[in-house]
Amino acid sequence: MPQLRQDLITGRWVAVATERAKRPDSFTQAPRDAVAAKDICPFCPGNEKMTPPEVLAYREPGSAPNGPGWWLRVVPNLYAAFRLEPDGQTAHDGVFEQRDAIGACEVLISSPDHRATTPLLPRHQVEEIVQSYLDRYHAHQRNPALEYVLILYNHGRPAGASLEHPHSQLYAVGVVPPAFQEELAGAQRHLAQGSGCVFCRIITEERRAGARIIMENEAFLVFAPYAARTPFETWIIPKRHAASFGDLGGREKAPLAEALQRTLKAFRTGLNDPPFNYFIHSAPLKARVDDAYHWHLEIIPKLSIAAGFEMGAGMWINVVKPEDAASFLRQQITVEDRAAV
Amino acid sequence: MPQLRQDLITGRWVAVATERAKRPDSFTQAPRDAVAAKDICPFCPGNEKMTPPEVLAYREPGSAPNGPGWWLRVVPNLYAAFRLEPDGQTAHDGVFEQRDAIGACEVLISSPDHRATTPLLPRHQVEEIVQSYLDRYHAHQRNPALEYVLILYNHGRPAGASLEHPHSQLYAVGVVPPAFQEELAGAQRHLAQGSGCVFCRIITEERRAGARIIMENEAFLVFAPYAARTPFETWIIPKRHAASFGDLGGREKAPLAEALQRTLKAFRTGLNDPPFNYFIHSAPLKARVDDAYHWHLEIIPKLSIAAGFEMGAGMWINVVKPEDAASFLRQQITVEDRAAV
Repeated sequence: MPQLRQDLITGRWVAVATERAKRPDSFTQAPRDAVAAKDICPFCPGNEKMTPPEVLAYREPGSAPNGPGWWLRVVPNLYAAFRLEPDGQTAHDGVFEQRDAIGACEVLISSPDHRATTPLLPRHQVEEIVQSYLDRYHAHQRNPALEYVLILYNHGRPAGASLEHPHSQLYAVGVVPPAFQEELAGAQRHLAQGSGCVFCRIITEERRAGARIIMENEAFLVFAPYAARTPFETWIIPKRHAASFGDLGGREKAPLAEALQRTLKAFRTGLNDPPFNYFIHSAPLKARVDDAYHWHLEIIPKLSIAAGFEMGAGMWINVVKPEDAASFLRQQITVEDRAAV
Repeated sequence: MPQLRQDLITGRWVAVATERAKRPDSFTQAPRDAVAAKDICPFCPGNEKMTPPEVLAYREPGSAPNGPGWWLRVVPNLYAAFRLEPDGQTAHDGVFEQRDAIGACEVLISSPDHRATTPLLPRHQVEEIVQSYLDRYHAHQRNPALEYVLILYNHGRPAGASLEHPHSQLYAVGVVPPAFQEELAGAQRHLAQGSGCVFCRIITEERRAGARIIMENEAFLVFAPYAARTPFETWIIPKRHAASFGDLGGREKAPLAEALQRTLKAFRTGLNDPPFNYFIHSAPLKARVDDAYHWHLEIIPKLSIAAGFEMGAGMWINVVKPEDAASFLRQQITVEDRAAV
């Protein structure tokens, strides 16, 4: 019998259709559409003038801004869907309403290496990526025009990557995004009911059950959510309760880089470099939600298609059991551990 | 300045990013991935034994069930994500909850012709498709185990079609789908505020403004919604207020078939046969929402990718203004009208 599983946080139901179930290795066969290569990559060293001026760069002492010498560089997105303007306008259009799309869109270039995706970088460079997320989060955190900072990564053409050179994106926006709001509302409901932080409760439950854990280090738990929406959906969550990614502690940076890189390496080797999106859900910039919310990073592989049912119902059908997905990825990490000894 | 537009029904905001704007004809260039052809099509006449036994067929008098002689055939989905069982079970799994996925999944085969998509069929056959939707809607409507009937169509591989032979799908399910629930909640809010049916209000506004209308006939309005989520999103809505598709009147069938076929033909000729999903949003089977809700059909072309921003924020960025999309599709229909004279 097919199963509906309820996400404890939001209350949303996901259909886990074991009747359509696929074995994890059936996902490795699909050809991976390459991102269209450009003649000249605007993110490669030497081409810095092709982007807007950098807003942050980690670079060799003495090297000039907007020239080579950097090992991580952040620039405004040339195709920004949101813009920072001093006064956002609201207007009526018949019975409808529109607003200026206030915000900032930035591109965080992972490294100077055009080919080095996160699994292929030296670990210290992944820590630099984490540091750049934190620095840019802090840069926008106190802007009164902004409500939310969303940091994300698109890998592969089917996941929306339009440039090959690995890069993350940051959207600092003047609205509270509905997908986050839905999670926060659920977490606040749990807190009001006296059951504390629902994310902490999930961490406890996942460690007790074990079946959905992918890996764990001193500061982070990596697991497949009970009501995963897509095959191999994976969450990375700090074990210490903290509402905002902006409060990431000095000792949490290296473990986060480790958890992220090892998980993405397990995807790459185990699932034939699948397309995926990841994003960080963190407390909104203004509301006080310290007790209710718990920041985390969600990785959503793009191995199935959201079709008419998903669009029309707003419900997901997942053809891989989260326990099977976790077991498969856990094994990839174990193999890697053995190889490293 | 990029713009946020608010959907009047749900309150959700969509970013219309004119800075990234593309001309409508830029969408015609992409190659269309074909659905994988099978050696033997289970939906073609002569292969009726490859599907579960039919639950409905319009067929020649005297022809035997589950053999040739039909012009429209409905069968249970062999890969059902929902099943009708006499007693649905709920179970706890640690702190989590799961339920049996109660429901029925059916496939409505458009015609015996393996190649004839909706734009290529004779009009009377499109009317038969509409009739089959209505017949199967009524068949599930009074089942006390069910809460909702969702009828949908996936066209093209990027939109999730897995078999080439044109077919619609029906999901009769024991849950109220969240995407519909969000719309209903918004509509009920509008009703409670004393502004009547928000859909009727939108029809009036669209006919006043004109810029987003694609076509209109005696019973239906076809338009691009003000806060369209994707390029060329199109709605077909009955001008007569009615909450349930199940109440489609005898005189509304032919106009619905006309509106659907002409719109899909405009997509096919104007946009190079793009992938799309469509679905019917109708009142739930049990709740009384006659005054608040207004059924309609939503067509969502798959010409852009939902990437990390859409997933993480639950917000859409639309790179084509709805007014431009409507103008482009309206022109396709005008050209077709002239050709028909």
